[in-house]
Amino acid sequence: MVEAAHGLASHGDQVVLVLFGMVVVLLGAKLGGELAVRLRQPAVLGELAAGIVLGNLALVGLPQLDSLKSSASLQLMAEIGVILLLFDVGLETDMHELLAVGWSATIVAHLGVIAPMLLGYGVTAVFLPESPWYVHLFSAATLTATSVGITARVLQDLNQMETREARIILGAAVVDDVLGLIILAVVAGMVTSIGGGGGAVLEWKPVALIVLKAAAFLVGAIWVGRRIHINALKIAQSFRVQGVTLVLAVCYCFALAALAGWLGLAPIVGAFAAGLVIADDDYAAYQARGIRPVAELIKPLTAVFVPMFFVLMGLKVDLHVFGSTSVIGLAAALTVAAVIGKQVCGFGVIDKGVSRVAVGVGMIPRGEVGLIFTGIGAALSVQGKPVFDSSLISAMVVMVLLTTVMTPPLLQAVFRRR
Amino acid sequence: MVEAAHGLASHGDQVVLVLFGMVVVLLGAKLGGELAVRLRQPAVLGELAAGIVLGNLALVGLPQLDSLKSSASLQLMAEIGVILLLFDVGLETDMHELLAVGWSATIVAHLGVIAPMLLGYGVTAVFLPESPWYVHLFSAATLTATSVGITARVLQDLNQMETREARIILGAAVVDDVLGLIILAVVAGMVTSIGGGGGAVLEWKPVALIVLKAAAFLVGAIWVGRRIHINALKIAQSFRVQGVTLVLAVCYCFALAALAGWLGLAPIVGAFAAGLVIADDDYAAYQARGIRPVAELIKPLTAVFVPMFFVLMGLKVDLHVFGSTSVIGLAAALTVAAVIGKQVCGFGVIDKGVSRVAVGVGMIPRGEVGLIFTGIGAALSVQGKPVFDSSLISAMVVMVLLTTVMTPPLLQAVFRRR
Repeated sequence: MVEAAHGLASHGDQVVLVLFGMVVVLLGAKLGGELAVRLRQPAVLGELAAGIVLGNLALVGLPQLDSLKSSASLQLMAEIGVILLLFDVGLETDMHELLAVGWSATIVAHLGVIAPMLLGYGVTAVFLPESPWYVHLFSAATLTATSVGITARVLQDLNQMETREARIILGAAVVDDVLGLIILAVVAGMVTSIGGGGGAVLEWKPVALIVLKAAAFLVGAIWVGRRIHINALKIAQSFRVQGVTLVLAVCYCFALAALAGWLGLAPIVGAFAAGLVIADDDYAAYQARGIRPVAELIKPLTAVFVPMFFVLMGLKVDLHVFGSTSVIGLAAALTVAAVIGKQVCGFGVIDKGVSRVAVGVGMIPRGEVGLIFTGIGAALSVQGKPVFDSSLISAMVVMVLLTTVMTPPLLQAVFRRR
Repeated sequence: MVEAAHGLASHGDQVVLVLFGMVVVLLGAKLGGELAVRLRQPAVLGELAAGIVLGNLALVGLPQLDSLKSSASLQLMAEIGVILLLFDVGLETDMHELLAVGWSATIVAHLGVIAPMLLGYGVTAVFLPESPWYVHLFSAATLTATSVGITARVLQDLNQMETREARIILGAAVVDDVLGLIILAVVAGMVTSIGGGGGAVLEWKPVALIVLKAAAFLVGAIWVGRRIHINALKIAQSFRVQGVTLVLAVCYCFALAALAGWLGLAPIVGAFAAGLVIADDDYAAYQARGIRPVAELIKPLTAVFVPMFFVLMGLKVDLHVFGSTSVIGLAAALTVAAVIGKQVCGFGVIDKGVSRVAVGVGMIPRGEVGLIFTGIGAALSVQGKPVFDSSLISAMVVMVLLTTVMTPPLLQAVFRRR
């Protein structure tokens, strides 16, 4: 009898766990965010800290919440959160003003890839002299990543989205994502080739393919997508069913994010692009009928989902990595290289009156992109030995954590000073 | 090299599929909803139809979308959708006005369980005379379920949430959920006992436990929960971080839904209760500061998630069941029993000036609850033979589908006539 009653209950078991997880994550986000705001810090720093606390309660004998880390459902909500965040950021960004800083953004992105690579190669070559050169190269590649989610969120928290600095950082982050993909394909391809017994062969075809796909997406899909969206909006003007504007906007955002992901780009690049090409005028006919603008309708969705992304990012931080003193030196050196490398970006700003320090600081966080590179470095192996051994992995995780956590206060200090 | 690039891409693969699925489901929902509205039907009927079409494209040689049916992620979004719907419905319902029709709701719920049970037992006893009596009993139990989601949504679509009929139906649905749990526990317990070689033993302890848990939840948890929520709101009044009202309301809804699910009740009962006990006044201090009321902030969330529930409900309908002529007779008889059984409900209305037909029609849809009962009937077996054989399962699925799809037009016709 009890089993039968459980039969009905088990229908809800999975849902119950996810709901409970969402409650814990969201309450943690708001408490952490409030604490950060009281300490005159951006709210996102508190959300990250709340995640780190919730994820490491096992250290003080409370391992009950550890299941939150491995929940695929919460992870999905978090991914939807960061996609909605970048869509929202795109909505707040004027495309023509972004294109106006296009050259600066492109140069910033390239400098922000070259400098961290050189410094990263140097650091591992000094700290791990007995390692083969491709280990240094993969470390160098890992340092190029930029996690635009953190910076975009801090700029929102600080109400600085309208500044030219913000536009340059966002534009550079899009270019950076494409460059990162190319570098990953080249470096991982060379390592795989060495692992297969060949030399460090450089195949140009896959690289050309990535460049082509990215270019096709950024130019073609966005404009075609915009045409489709605008026409869908026109057709839907005669619709009587409720909620059409928001659902069409969300579908447009998700479709471009999915397309970007399908092409191997980050889904958030697609979401940002979707928001970017939507103009306020597109919805004029709807607003005349008293329907609120999409930028406003999207806020309740971002209020619930965006904090989940940052709490879950914090949840994945395992404070044990700080326990191994052997990696602290390497981790510190990598972090310094990561920070200085992105400061070089600032020199790429050719527009006048723009804070180069702000741009450089905005490019610092490695976030989830750095973790993905680290994960691939751990998975690739040459002659049975993984490219990244456990201490290098730990050092990279510490670097990702420190660059992510230092950005909100640094960025706030830089923007406050202006 | 290609594998390595895929390593990065695979991070997004799962997300890409879910995003794509959401786009298809949401666009289908809006197109179906619009078609229904044009045909002067509630939008929800079009969402169900859109799901049925999307789920049966394999019949016309397009099986590509069949993966939508088995996506656990989309299912989770749908469950969150129906939870938010019932929370929203609870927000729109005044608790004191609901309690004012409490006696009617209680009698309606009891009649709506007894009458379908008697009719259901009779139908299977006539159509399947060679089956043992516990098969008839389980069929009878399956006919008692009420899926309040459909009715609540139709009442919203028709702007009839403020009527006494709506309150009686919603109140009865809550009582019905508890009664259904008790019946399931009793009947499934008897079948398990027979299957184990014993007689039709009736254990009272688990039944008493269910009643106790349900009572404790409905009275205790809701009032304690309300106290906690009100106090959280008071503390959060001094918060400077954004989005506190909506996040607290969502957390409160999800927490009570999770608690209900954990106790074996339907999570939507918890969500409805959470919305019910929130009063407009609770947010007075926030609204004085220009923050929109929760009932308004929740709308963008329901606009995106609620249609997913109804499209996914339609997606699960396998039109093949209509192909087997052998079950059509039994299915038709069960459907008639299911409809007439709930019409008897109307006689339970003791308030004056209330349409008994409207209450009876509102209780018709069996929806996902009927499918859960059917699934348990298929899973339980006596002497190696499942209680529900494949033709009985098909007949039950047809009954669930027909009662669910007939409710929106019937309910609209009844309310239009008044």
